[in-house]
Amino acid sequence: MSQPPPAAVGQRLAEVDTPALVLDLDAFEANIATLNRAVGQRVRVRAHAKTHKCPDIARRQIAAGAVGVCCQKVSEAEALVEGGVHDVLVSNEIVGAPKIARLAELSKRARLGVCVDNAQNVRALSDSNASLDVYVELEVGMARCGIAPGKPAVALVREILNSPKLRFAGVQAYHGRAQHVRSMAERKASIDRAADAVRLTKKLLAEEKIECPIVTGAGSGTFMFELESGAWDEIQPGSYVFMDADYARNEWAAPLPRFRHALFVLTTVMSRPRPEVAIVDAGLKASSVDSGMPTVWERPGLAYTHASDEHGWVEGAPAPALGDKLLLVPGHCDPTVNLYDWYVCVRRNVVEDLWPITARGALA
Amino acid sequence: MSQPPPAAVGQRLAEVDTPALVLDLDAFEANIATLNRAVGQRVRVRAHAKTHKCPDIARRQIAAGAVGVCCQKVSEAEALVEGGVHDVLVSNEIVGAPKIARLAELSKRARLGVCVDNAQNVRALSDSNASLDVYVELEVGMARCGIAPGKPAVALVREILNSPKLRFAGVQAYHGRAQHVRSMAERKASIDRAADAVRLTKKLLAEEKIECPIVTGAGSGTFMFELESGAWDEIQPGSYVFMDADYARNEWAAPLPRFRHALFVLTTVMSRPRPEVAIVDAGLKASSVDSGMPTVWERPGLAYTHASDEHGWVEGAPAPALGDKLLLVPGHCDPTVNLYDWYVCVRRNVVEDLWPITARGALA
Repeated sequence: MSQPPPAAVGQRLAEVDTPALVLDLDAFEANIATLNRAVGQRVRVRAHAKTHKCPDIARRQIAAGAVGVCCQKVSEAEALVEGGVHDVLVSNEIVGAPKIARLAELSKRARLGVCVDNAQNVRALSDSNASLDVYVELEVGMARCGIAPGKPAVALVREILNSPKLRFAGVQAYHGRAQHVRSMAERKASIDRAADAVRLTKKLLAEEKIECPIVTGAGSGTFMFELESGAWDEIQPGSYVFMDADYARNEWAAPLPRFRHALFVLTTVMSRPRPEVAIVDAGLKASSVDSGMPTVWERPGLAYTHASDEHGWVEGAPAPALGDKLLLVPGHCDPTVNLYDWYVCVRRNVVEDLWPITARGALA
Repeated sequence: MSQPPPAAVGQRLAEVDTPALVLDLDAFEANIATLNRAVGQRVRVRAHAKTHKCPDIARRQIAAGAVGVCCQKVSEAEALVEGGVHDVLVSNEIVGAPKIARLAELSKRARLGVCVDNAQNVRALSDSNASLDVYVELEVGMARCGIAPGKPAVALVREILNSPKLRFAGVQAYHGRAQHVRSMAERKASIDRAADAVRLTKKLLAEEKIECPIVTGAGSGTFMFELESGAWDEIQPGSYVFMDADYARNEWAAPLPRFRHALFVLTTVMSRPRPEVAIVDAGLKASSVDSGMPTVWERPGLAYTHASDEHGWVEGAPAPALGDKLLLVPGHCDPTVNLYDWYVCVRRNVVEDLWPITARGALA
């Protein structure tokens, strides 16, 4: 059910059939270097692999200094360990006997972490005999998972400490919603509030003489705020390797470094129904529209205005001709990557490599 | 890169790990029978396989009387032919040398059709030596692909007739946008206008003594209007086998028969952060949100209110407990199916079969 490789090494980009998911290696490598320069040794980097779902990318992030990666699903962790990654944090709650059994099995092969926000879940993990780093997830503004900071979190930490097979590894404080708040000042304010929640929880833990080894969290839109607050030990940026059109709509300034667009959908004009409209062969099954439409790369007169399942509308001037190819910057990189089996890795318009997206469709 | 089968035959639905794509076989079979009863012998049915991407389903549709299937991509057609389907219409324009070469190759193995809206594309198809049924696609209100009805369409038909290797098979008149217009009266009005465009084009063809073998088109939200107009010979419904939440939001009455929801996403409650909120493990990578949120099946007090990549918010009362499982009706079935590798086929809450979604990710 996997699709065959959509290109061949040595092919020119213009020859690649479409739609194809294209990774610009120069931009990708520059983004990894940019993150390293911005962060230095001030916090650990645990790159988020939910973005790319690809061990080839995870291994490069680790070679560049990341302590490991994180992901959201047990099946993603399995694909990453299978691909040679030895330190994976499932930055999410894992509920249900089948998945916990898989987590326990995988914990024999790699250093594995998981988040909890519920004592019942801690007991289920403990009963599985898994060897796990367990992080208490704090609710810091997403209104999603997580336990209230302060006393409720400390009570849950005690549940972990009372489970001899589990290692209390610290707390996760991730404010995903803040990543996409447009204004720098409001993003910083969200993270300042999250930092207060972290400090309160650490203070109560310290009063009980409980060591909190690691505070982990942060994403590509805010990580410098977490870093500068001093409240986090580890950051989890994912999208920085690709940068998508939604992140590009954020206000972006120091202390955040500037990343390049490295991920594209290559598409072909398949119909020219009217002078100012080109229909392309990449619709919403080729570029996820949950965070808005893709943008057209380096064609300032053109806009991708809407999508149906297999078609996209590109409007403006000068309109491309039938058969012309365009590069789109996806609206949201994570769910777009999940639609493909392969990265077509390109350097200066020549295909240099093909990387399989082995955690594509890893839902469970 | 394919995911392993997510369930085992004989398992109870409650034991299936999540998220999983569940097909209720009783409802699925009822939907096929309902379509047959409504349509009778009045038009041919060419079921749209872009919805299900699965030869196991296509073969059942054909066994129930469909003349074949249609799809949107050459790679989908390849997966269907590989899976034993011998009559496939690519109901879309196919542009670019690599894809046309694949179409030509596939045309040696199956009866294959394709649409055109451009003379340059007709010449490229002709030069490929493909053995193809070629349909001229009329623009009938979608503002997508298609050539203007009447004289421009007739001129394009002549291009096909002048290409000895191509067979002029008729015209395609598909009004996808009309499928989702909420009011019955407005949907019918859209199809009445499309029927006028078809009749005009057929009249001009008849005046030139050109036979138009087949008029094909229509989808699940309108097909009875096309049928009753008398202007179509063949209908292309796809979503009727599953019915999604978006179709359920349409006004629905005679002459359209009522279909059942047959496709579900099984999900688990993974966090209970507040009394009235349950976080489930199916987000927008598990149920496409392009046409709105999924609905919660047979839990009238609960609403799935929003999604992030791997999480969904279910709100209302009585709130489900941690670990409880819910069935979601996807907002839009086609892109949701494209996120999965397997249908977990269930009859009366027991897994009866697992069908691979072999055209999942078939983008090219």
